[in-house]
Amino acid sequence: MSDPRAILETFENQFPGRDYVIEIVCPEFTSVCPMTGQPDFGTLTITYTPDRTCVELKSLKLYLQGFRNEGIFYENVTNRIFDVLMEMLKPRRLKLAAAFTPRGGISTTVTVSHDSAAD
Amino acid sequence: MSDPRAILETFENQFPGRDYVIEIVCPEFTSVCPMTGQPDFGTLTITYTPDRTCVELKSLKLYLQGFRNEGIFYENVTNRIFDVLMEMLKPRRLKLAAAFTPRGGISTTVTVSHDSAAD
Amino acid sequence: MSDPRAILETFENQFPGRDYVIEIVCPEFTSVCPMTGQPDFGTLTITYTPDRTCVELKSLKLYLQGFRNEGIFYENVTNRIFDVLMEMLKPRRLKLAAAFTPRGGISTTVTVSHDSAAD
Amino acid sequence: MSDPRAILETFENQFPGRDYVIEIVCPEFTSVCPMTGQPDFGTLTITYTPDRTCVELKSLKLYLQGFRNEGIFYENVTNRIFDVLMEMLKPRRLKLAAAFTPRGGISTTVTVSHDSAAD
Amino acid sequence: MSDPRAILETFENQFPGRDYVIEIVCPEFTSVCPMTGQPDFGTLTITYTPDRTCVELKSLKLYLQGFRNEGIFYENVTNRIFDVLMEMLKPRRLKLAAAFTPRGGISTTVTVSHDSAAD
Amino acid sequence: MSDPRAILETFENQFPGRDYVIEIVCPEFTSVCPMTGQPDFGTLTITYTPDRTCVELKSLKLYLQGFRNEGIFYENVTNRIFDVLMEMLKPRRLKLAAAFTPRGGISTTVTVSHDSAAD
Amino acid sequence: MSDPRAILETFENQFPGRDYVIEIVCPEFTSVCPMTGQPDFGTLTITYTPDRTCVELKSLKLYLQGFRNEGIFYENVTNRIFDVLMEMLKPRRLKLAAAFTPRGGISTTVTVSHDSAAD
Amino acid sequence: MSDPRAILETFENQFPGRDYVIEIVCPEFTSVCPMTGQPDFGTLTITYTPDRTCVELKSLKLYLQGFRNEGIFYENVTNRIFDVLMEMLKPRRLKLAAAFTPRGGISTTVTVSHDSAAD
Amino acid sequence: MSDPRAILETFENQFPGRDYVIEIVCPEFTSVCPMTGQPDFGTLTITYTPDRTCVELKSLKLYLQGFRNEGIFYENVTNRIFDVLMEMLKPRRLKLAAAFTPRGGISTTVTVSHDSAAD
Amino acid sequence: MSDPRAILETFENQFPGRDYVIEIVCPEFTSVCPMTGQPDFGTLTITYTPDRTCVELKSLKLYLQGFRNEGIFYENVTNRIFDVLMEMLKPRRLKLAAAFTPRGGISTTVTVSHDSAAD
Repeated sequence: MSDPRAILETFENQFPGRDYVIEIVCPEFTSVCPMTGQPDFGTLTITYTPDRTCVELKSLKLYLQGFRNEGIFYENVTNRIFDVLMEMLKPRRLKLAAAFTPRGGISTTVTVSHDSAAD
Repeated sequence: MSDPRAILETFENQFPGRDYVIEIVCPEFTSVCPMTGQPDFGTLTITYTPDRTCVELKSLKLYLQGFRNEGIFYENVTNRIFDVLMEMLKPRRLKLAAAFTPRGGISTTVTVSHDSAAD
Repeated sequence: MSDPRAILETFENQFPGRDYVIEIVCPEFTSVCPMTGQPDFGTLTITYTPDRTCVELKSLKLYLQGFRNEGIFYENVTNRIFDVLMEMLKPRRLKLAAAFTPRGGISTTVTVSHDSAAD
Repeated sequence: MSDPRAILETFENQFPGRDYVIEIVCPEFTSVCPMTGQPDFGTLTITYTPDRTCVELKSLKLYLQGFRNEGIFYENVTNRIFDVLMEMLKPRRLKLAAAFTPRGGISTTVTVSHDSAAD
Repeated sequence: MSDPRAILETFENQFPGRDYVIEIVCPEFTSVCPMTGQPDFGTLTITYTPDRTCVELKSLKLYLQGFRNEGIFYENVTNRIFDVLMEMLKPRRLKLAAAFTPRGGISTTVTVSHDSAAD
Repeated sequence: MSDPRAILETFENQFPGRDYVIEIVCPEFTSVCPMTGQPDFGTLTITYTPDRTCVELKSLKLYLQGFRNEGIFYENVTNRIFDVLMEMLKPRRLKLAAAFTPRGGISTTVTVSHDSAAD
Repeated sequence: MSDPRAILETFENQFPGRDYVIEIVCPEFTSVCPMTGQPDFGTLTITYTPDRTCVELKSLKLYLQGFRNEGIFYENVTNRIFDVLMEMLKPRRLKLAAAFTPRGGISTTVTVSHDSAAD
Repeated sequence: MSDPRAILETFENQFPGRDYVIEIVCPEFTSVCPMTGQPDFGTLTITYTPDRTCVELKSLKLYLQGFRNEGIFYENVTNRIFDVLMEMLKPRRLKLAAAFTPRGGISTTVTVSHDSAAD
Repeated sequence: MSDPRAILETFENQFPGRDYVIEIVCPEFTSVCPMTGQPDFGTLTITYTPDRTCVELKSLKLYLQGFRNEGIFYENVTNRIFDVLMEMLKPRRLKLAAAFTPRGGISTTVTVSHDSAAD
Repeated sequence: MSDPRAILETFENQFPGRDYVIEIVCPEFTSVCPMTGQPDFGTLTITYTPDRTCVELKSLKLYLQGFRNEGIFYENVTNRIFDVLMEMLKPRRLKLAAAFTPRGGISTTVTVSHDSAAD
């Protein structure tokens, strides 16, 4: 998989003096289970308060499509995308929830959050 | 687009001694994406506690219709409407949530809030 | 419209030593818009903690029916019913939410609350 | 109606060292309105944190069936069942919500709670 | 029933420096009522913040299947699974909610939680 | 149980020259299981095309309340009410569907129909 | 109540050579029960295939508002509106379904239809 | 698995002169996949018109519970239960629909029907 | 508004020997009411069986966007789009349903269909 | 993409003397748009009456996964899968409905059917 910094684009937050929230829902996320080689499907919900930088939506879509043929576990894919968004956006607050469809009658959601005010 | 002050009408809050909440849901908002020229569609939810001034609903509808052929990004249209409501209503509290329909499998909600008691 | 004190009946709270909550939902509220003369429709939700007095449900229904041919704005009807309930019940807590059906593609909810412990 | 102590059975909480929550939903509650003689219908939701004693479900069902032909007001039936559960279970926390079906276009929910930690 | 330690597998949390949440929903849980011998059915929802250890999903499924022909009460099965997860995962936070289907018109949910920060 | 002819009232169909349909939904039906003595609960849906006679709704409610303490099986109660409506209304078409709530994880609906044009 | 012919307006069907269907849903219908004097509430659904004439929507709204303080039974109001629409529109097909909100735990829908091809 | 004739009980249809329909929904069906040894879960819907014989519900529940530890494919279990009901009830019409929960992201429903009038 | 033939593109049906159905749902349709100048909003559902020609989706979107600032009545816009699709696709079957959002508490759906086999 | 005959497995229908229906829902289908290179997502619903042959579910899943990186139009993928199922199963009846998620605010469903009795 390519370097996310080469795919993800950002733009300058036009309202840096204000705390506001952007929620992005991506119900078409898919990757591959590294154990079974079978595809996984899930919905990613990204909720963040921008500081100086916002993520550009089309480049976000392309970045997430990069996992389409990648073998990676639920916990890892969620934390990896979280790390990339933290590094590129340096947001005041960020939450990433990844809800995967059922496998063997069991469904899983992994949620990672950051709040700079709570540090 | 015309000056919002020429379109939006207000009336005097008849119950200024009381904190109460007015929620207005506008599911028929539409503007134009400045990148692609394609129309955007969304639902605006305005929730505010009036101080001395309330917004008149018919003029609000006409003001929002003014974005129909305007090219403007999600983040900007939400913050601009928020600024106009802040300036004209000077409310005790105001929240504006703009939920846009999916594009490329991704949907976005921008939420801006103000609470004068928290200043 | 008649004096609400002549219509609304109350009964003595049998459990004054206990804080408890009564929620009453009235989805068949209708009044008239004083601007256009057109009927308005809404759902009233009354939530209160009684002190010494409870409202009798049948008389409440008759009181609310008194607005059927009354010309009155959303904000005013909500605050007026709230004032009458405050005066007659003197409740420990009271919340009145009035959710009106869409007009011109826009729907409105007005919510008024009181908490005697927060005074 | 018989003495609830002769009907309701309890068993010893096997996990007294732990705070946990048991929620019981009874959508088939029915009693009789003492004013009109007409049957009332509702859903009872009992949520409690046991201390030393839990309620046995089959005996609870039989106890609630005892109201089937009893004439009793909404507020009274809710508070009476609450009192019986408090006396027999002496729970750390208890909430009883009784949601009755619409009468004359109006529906009512009565909610009573207790939290021993807040005493 | 076999020793859960022989069935449940765990793996090392790759992100121990971060507080994050894993929610696992198992709608196909079934055991047997020890009173009547009749099968019970329920949905288990496990929500935890891992410390050093995560539960492997396939082994969790097999562990839960072990209750299929086990006679055990609602309260006991919930607390027993909670104890096993606490012992094997030593999580920072854990909540287990077990929602059982209606019996005799009554449905029951048992919820157990732990928060190491609140100890 | 009293004779239904003493309870049920009818009125003359004002539009006998026209085929039209009246659907009546009664979600608060309750009777008693003759095997276990336990109460049963269900929703009755009556759909008919009147010929010369319509059923009066308040008397229908009272008639159905007469089963409240009656021990009777699902199939029998549905067919008995159907027979009474056939005899008293002599409708052009009649369908009675009785949907009972789950018992032992199983729910049952009994449906009886008549179409005089198909005789 | 005024003559409906003085209120209802029609316009010429621009596509008389084609069979097509217009469905109009009016969820804000209200009249008065002639027995009790209490307001009734319902949703009218008008489905028709125009021949030479269509009904104008604003005049339809005003015509239906004319029943607001009229005492009239469910069956009669449905058949009367049906007759007026038949007389003024002479449609190829017409169906009117009037679904009223619950009274005494019972809700009623009256449906009248006409199909000129079936005469 | 025992002989179904030793478990299933029937009773005589009290209304053999009338065509009517009994629908039974069993959402708690479970068997075992003969390939993987993993449990399967599904909802059975039985819809039949009795001739001389009706199925007793409690014995039906016990009969279906007999598949709990039986290894059997979706198509086979559906057809086998259908055959047993046909043989024991000899109904005028019978439909059995078995809807199984998702496995590997795929869910399956098998439906078998019989109509003696169509033979 | 431009000539639809200059905007709409088609492509050759690759399976002309087979009857199959394409359903296209467009929930973001908007035009303008010629009476009031106010925007209308609706959902178009196009269902057709192609003969030799299919409609290209992106050009369909652009064609429908051409109504954005067009003043046109519900009945006319539905029939006009239907005529254009009939002329350009010459489909074996075509149905167009246009469901508009409520105005004055009333919502309207216009449905036009064609079946060449029924001519 | 590999030859489907090398992936899809079938098994012999155990009940060839009976007409019955198997419905298979696959909500995790994904392919690639040949115009834009962007992934498409959809739900396939396969409904068939087997003659001598049934499709094995795991091999069906693998066959559908083969489209994951295939560039193919909606109409073509639906018809191609239909052709393969027809050839391999030779079913008495077959329907394949493919419902794709929205693109540019427009969603599409393609449905192909076969009924050997209607030939």
